Amino acid sequence: MRDASTAPDRDAPIGVFDSGIGGLTVVRALRRRLPDEGIVYLGDTARVPYGTKSAETIRRFALEDALFLAGRGVKMIVVACHSASSAALPELQRHFAVPVLGVVEPGARAVVAATTRRKVGVIGTTATIGSAAYETAIRSLTDEVEILAKPTPLFVPLAEEGWLDGDVAEGVARRYLASFAEEGVDALLLGCTHFPLLVPVISRVLGPGVRLIDSSDETAAAAGALLEKRSLTATKGPGSSRFYLTDLTPSFDKVGARFLGEPLGDVVRASVTACDNSSAGGRP
Amino acid sequence: MRDASTAPDRDAPIGVFDSGIGGLTVVRALRRRLPDEGIVYLGDTARVPYGTKSAETIRRFALEDALFLAGRGVKMIVVACHSASSAALPELQRHFAVPVLGVVEPGARAVVAATTRRKVGVIGTTATIGSAAYETAIRSLTDEVEILAKPTPLFVPLAEEGWLDGDVAEGVARRYLASFAEEGVDALLLGCTHFPLLVPVISRVLGPGVRLIDSSDETAAAAGALLEKRSLTATKGPGSSRFYLTDLTPSFDKVGARFLGEPLGDVVRASVTACDNSSAGGRP
Repeated sequence: MRDASTAPDRDAPIGVFDSGIGGLTVVRALRRRLPDEGIVYLGDTARVPYGTKSAETIRRFALEDALFLAGRGVKMIVVACHSASSAALPELQRHFAVPVLGVVEPGARAVVAATTRRKVGVIGTTATIGSAAYETAIRSLTDEVEILAKPTPLFVPLAEEGWLDGDVAEGVARRYLASFAEEGVDALLLGCTHFPLLVPVISRVLGPGVRLIDSSDETAAAAGALLEKRSLTATKGPGSSRFYLTDLTPSFDKVGARFLGEPLGDVVRASVTACDNSSAGGRP
Repeated sequence: MRDASTAPDRDAPIGVFDSGIGGLTVVRALRRRLPDEGIVYLGDTARVPYGTKSAETIRRFALEDALFLAGRGVKMIVVACHSASSAALPELQRHFAVPVLGVVEPGARAVVAATTRRKVGVIGTTATIGSAAYETAIRSLTDEVEILAKPTPLFVPLAEEGWLDGDVAEGVARRYLASFAEEGVDALLLGCTHFPLLVPVISRVLGPGVRLIDSSDETAAAAGALLEKRSLTATKGPGSSRFYLTDLTPSFDKVGARFLGEPLGDVVRASVTACDNSSAGGRP
């Protein structure tokens, strides 16, 4: 999309995409750490979730999302979706000239640093855990850590419904997490953007002996380091944020504010595939 | 898609579509009631679920799904998805020459027939309940029934995860359904293809005084009546079924068999938008 020999504009925005609105936790961390940077966010709310779908379909969707951001002239792409990072990162890095950063590697680094018993847990969607991307990332750092990985798909709709505590949330957490406590894990990686909202109930079920790693903040730190290294940090600030969603779902503003930590403001409906531009009503 | 003056072939298959695999409960009921009919099923598993998305997006997806079935020469289209029936039925009926039948009207008829206290409940996804399609359908039959409608979105992932009973399922059911018992509802319409799987826990929570209406079977009966009326019943049998999914998700066969009541056999990955045919890997 861009001539690789041309350096990106350092005052261009950072592009961030996610399958939906969960990736706003990464935007929140980026804004806190890098207030001078502008951000263009794309949430693929028309096709959310990715985590229950096949790797092939997730790769196709991720390429379309990244292409949309590249078309907005971003200087870097942050893949805020764990399922897309797990399934599509190498392909994205191969196809796009700007740096592409995922959430998997920063999270893997943090969980390895956090464990003292050398026994870590990883939870995520079915697609993320099925890809074994976290195991691969942790193994590339060390061989001396035992890894217990488990899909916990019901945490996603629970966070979206806002049932963050109470009997149901606790029942789901107990059923999913009992084995981590039994196995003596002392650091748990929250491998999905939705899971930080469930930290209170997860902490209560696992007890104070288990450290919870939220990769959104680790990813924001890694993004800052990468911009420094490539001499791409913004020269003027503060940066502003633009939000694009592929569907303006009935609850995007309410749920989005929960993830971003503040209201989203203006949101524009975006089309990421050529077909989305056709007038569906006129086709048959 | 088809010249309206040309009568459809009565030995052509019935087309059925749903946002995912939940609509297989309608296929199961069709096969039982109309064993001579062939069936072409399309599940839009790449974009599932529809129930959390906007009416505009659901309408676009539903038109693409119906167009795919029309292209396979079906003689009738059954919209097995409650969210799509609620958002898109009039538009589908306007655009396609073959008869288009939804799940809303047959379900509404059955729940009105079932209540003696003239007080009915309706549960469904956020989109289905938000559309008020069931209220409209019930009101077109009678003014003398009180309607209590409530979105119960967590029932969908609960059914897909297979947590059909136990503490979590019961906790979710109690939280969603308490108000129906308090209000004295005596018939509850299950306005989502996933909910029949949760009948045991829903029954236990509501008690024997509340009749549960599963619209899949009502829809199959209505489809049979409509074929009779239009002289479109198959002349030879038994009919066979073909299954198309827009994504071969990791769990479609396991979850699909749960909804269909038997293994699906061969399943073909389908593209319902022109863009789906492009090689995503080659685009950037």
